[in-house]
Amino acid sequence: MSVELPAEVTRLRETVASLHAELVRYQLVAWTAGNVSARVPGRDLMVIKPSGVSYDDLSPENMIVCDLDGVVVDGDLSPSSDTAAHAYVYRAMPEVGGVVHTHSGYATAWAARGEPVPCHLTAQADEFGGEIPVGPFALIGGDDIGKGIVATLSGHRSPAVLMRNHGVFTIGPDARAAVKAAVMCEDVARTAHLTRALGTPVPMARADIDSLYDRYQNVYGQPGTRSTAR
Amino acid sequence: MSVELPAEVTRLRETVASLHAELVRYQLVAWTAGNVSARVPGRDLMVIKPSGVSYDDLSPENMIVCDLDGVVVDGDLSPSSDTAAHAYVYRAMPEVGGVVHTHSGYATAWAARGEPVPCHLTAQADEFGGEIPVGPFALIGGDDIGKGIVATLSGHRSPAVLMRNHGVFTIGPDARAAVKAAVMCEDVARTAHLTRALGTPVPMARADIDSLYDRYQNVYGQPGTRSTAR
Amino acid sequence: MSVELPAEVTRLRETVASLHAELVRYQLVAWTAGNVSARVPGRDLMVIKPSGVSYDDLSPENMIVCDLDGVVVDGDLSPSSDTAAHAYVYRAMPEVGGVVHTHSGYATAWAARGEPVPCHLTAQADEFGGEIPVGPFALIGGDDIGKGIVATLSGHRSPAVLMRNHGVFTIGPDARAAVKAAVMCEDVARTAHLTRALGTPVPMARADIDSLYDRYQNVYGQPGTRSTAR
Amino acid sequence: MSVELPAEVTRLRETVASLHAELVRYQLVAWTAGNVSARVPGRDLMVIKPSGVSYDDLSPENMIVCDLDGVVVDGDLSPSSDTAAHAYVYRAMPEVGGVVHTHSGYATAWAARGEPVPCHLTAQADEFGGEIPVGPFALIGGDDIGKGIVATLSGHRSPAVLMRNHGVFTIGPDARAAVKAAVMCEDVARTAHLTRALGTPVPMARADIDSLYDRYQNVYGQPGTRSTAR
Repeated sequence: MSVELPAEVTRLRETVASLHAELVRYQLVAWTAGNVSARVPGRDLMVIKPSGVSYDDLSPENMIVCDLDGVVVDGDLSPSSDTAAHAYVYRAMPEVGGVVHTHSGYATAWAARGEPVPCHLTAQADEFGGEIPVGPFALIGGDDIGKGIVATLSGHRSPAVLMRNHGVFTIGPDARAAVKAAVMCEDVARTAHLTRALGTPVPMARADIDSLYDRYQNVYGQPGTRSTAR
Repeated sequence: MSVELPAEVTRLRETVASLHAELVRYQLVAWTAGNVSARVPGRDLMVIKPSGVSYDDLSPENMIVCDLDGVVVDGDLSPSSDTAAHAYVYRAMPEVGGVVHTHSGYATAWAARGEPVPCHLTAQADEFGGEIPVGPFALIGGDDIGKGIVATLSGHRSPAVLMRNHGVFTIGPDARAAVKAAVMCEDVARTAHLTRALGTPVPMARADIDSLYDRYQNVYGQPGTRSTAR
Repeated sequence: MSVELPAEVTRLRETVASLHAELVRYQLVAWTAGNVSARVPGRDLMVIKPSGVSYDDLSPENMIVCDLDGVVVDGDLSPSSDTAAHAYVYRAMPEVGGVVHTHSGYATAWAARGEPVPCHLTAQADEFGGEIPVGPFALIGGDDIGKGIVATLSGHRSPAVLMRNHGVFTIGPDARAAVKAAVMCEDVARTAHLTRALGTPVPMARADIDSLYDRYQNVYGQPGTRSTAR
Repeated sequence: MSVELPAEVTRLRETVASLHAELVRYQLVAWTAGNVSARVPGRDLMVIKPSGVSYDDLSPENMIVCDLDGVVVDGDLSPSSDTAAHAYVYRAMPEVGGVVHTHSGYATAWAARGEPVPCHLTAQADEFGGEIPVGPFALIGGDDIGKGIVATLSGHRSPAVLMRNHGVFTIGPDARAAVKAAVMCEDVARTAHLTRALGTPVPMARADIDSLYDRYQNVYGQPGTRSTAR
């Protein structure tokens, strides 16, 4: 296993380890049920959380480096049990640089009903460009979850998919963007839940959703750091 | 950009930077989706959050000073994408010294249904003097949001408006009062949601609401620090 | 105002100041909307929170000592705007050594509907001996709130009352017991809400509620520290 | 009381004291209403929380060692009022090494309705192998609670039981596994609640639940640390 690793792996180990703290901060994960990965740019490699390790115990050193078939290239522990799904996404979607998986409660409730989160909020239009779609039910252990994610998100504006009876997968140009999408997915899924719990949302015009999405993807944030189009 | 800035700007940079911690503490904001500003008294200037910067990374130094057309006067980063709305409010409502914007979940759910938060709580009567009103749907990017806020809140007791399908804007004599209004808006919107989720609230008499509002605006708190009438 | 104060006041200032942290920890309070007081044993005095002061800024030094008519005996700030209600309870119920007031959300939602929290949980039987009752609507500013609390809780097992359209008042043999009652009140009000949101609770037999209440009041906890009967 | 205690008791005192912090972190407990215990392997002894002591004040030193009839063998304080239930489980189920009790809100709401948590989530299939069952109503003070737990969980895949009108008991091969089951129980009970609040979940096939359960019990986590089958 003594492959020579690109220098960028050191930085990505830090990034991936520390981004898990955002999943904890926004209460998207219970115990060890959620994970972040990053593609190593220009190499068929990814950095991902080890399996079953507490968020308190994550550090750059115990992150796992895998190839894009999910085979461990560097690391003493087993990688996340969701590694195959992350790897499939990186193989199929070259523009994706980060993947996140959670079972965050409000989003997962929509997933358990098999209902997309409808878009009735400007924040959802900004980040997701419309509804957050539902992907198929798929068993863990092969490429089925990865295929379901890719089939649902390819050509879709949303960086988040609700895998049926399972939970959320998000993608982004880098790991931080994918984490942001996971945070915003739960936030809008929660507000959509609260909205519908007492009645019916006022519809938004498709043209307004388009206009908000377009603007947010191109104007928001600081020059050079804004989410680039996917 | 080397305008001479009034000494008070230094103090307001600290105030505005640190008040964002209250939005985080009360879980009114996800990722970077919320902002606080303060008018520089006696000058056509405001201090506001930079766009897309994490709450952890805010400091007096990276706050942005803009004029009341939203043009940056001092600061290296782009100001909040909501700057035009804040600026419009300061131009139109000279008694306003602070503005806050959030997408806090319960309040935003009322906004997504286009329903004002009805007043069935003494705490809401105290702070808002009755229902929390709904403002129009408006796209970001011009003065429409600002106009909607001002049209809704002018002559209204409530320091908070629920912008339809969007979120909350609050105003106050200073930034701290506007932050308090944002915190209390979510608190009463949540209790009103929980109330209606299982039945019907007992109505409050209009005279009781008036009496509570009048007392709270004039008696509560310490002499010299109480919310002054708007 | 230079009355000679009993030595116990020093200890009670610390106790009352620090117990407010429990209201914050259990998210029973927003901004400054909740307060704790303690009777000075054997004296017609109480220690209470100052009005409108942030929980972060409470210290033994800024607690206010009042007589049982609510007149300040020691302290530079105005006492809580709920001082009259606390004082009325101490005058009318000599066995009460602590009073707490909150607007905690789930409990206040029951109060806004004017519905007692029905007893379908062993934890509620233990602490409250049955339902948590609703008190009358009363305006702040005189003895009406205090009278409503006393009329509802006198001869009732529950140490908590839901004041209609307002919030929670709890009592206890000391301030810590009243804080515990406020924490448990919100906890059981929340579980009762969640229970009813999806259906109907299984009834508990009155004899079982009585048996649980009797045992908890006399057996739970460490010898010498258990909640004494009210 | 000066029995000679096995050296492992020292380690278990630390483990049990510190695992209570997970109950607090995941907000499963209010005030002192929840407890963790561990069996001392190979001895008829258990380590358990003292009764009525705040989670802030727990330390290895104040944990209580009892025999499996609940009689204190070492410790200055009274053991948890739920000691008899824990002890009964250890006597009846030799494979159990840890027991946890909470009144976590969503799970307890299912318990108050007497409804098992139906399995519509892969996370629930993984950890619980199907629905989370309801146990009988039982009064504290004898062996009835323990008998109800054992009768419900013997031969059941679920490590958690919802005791009717009461709360949650979980078991595991060690105390950490029982705490994990308590955390996951509340997490899936919450998502199941949110799912049903707005509609009907998509059913999962029994074969899929079986397949997920089997895989999770045998593959997840790091070699040597995975939850062993019960």
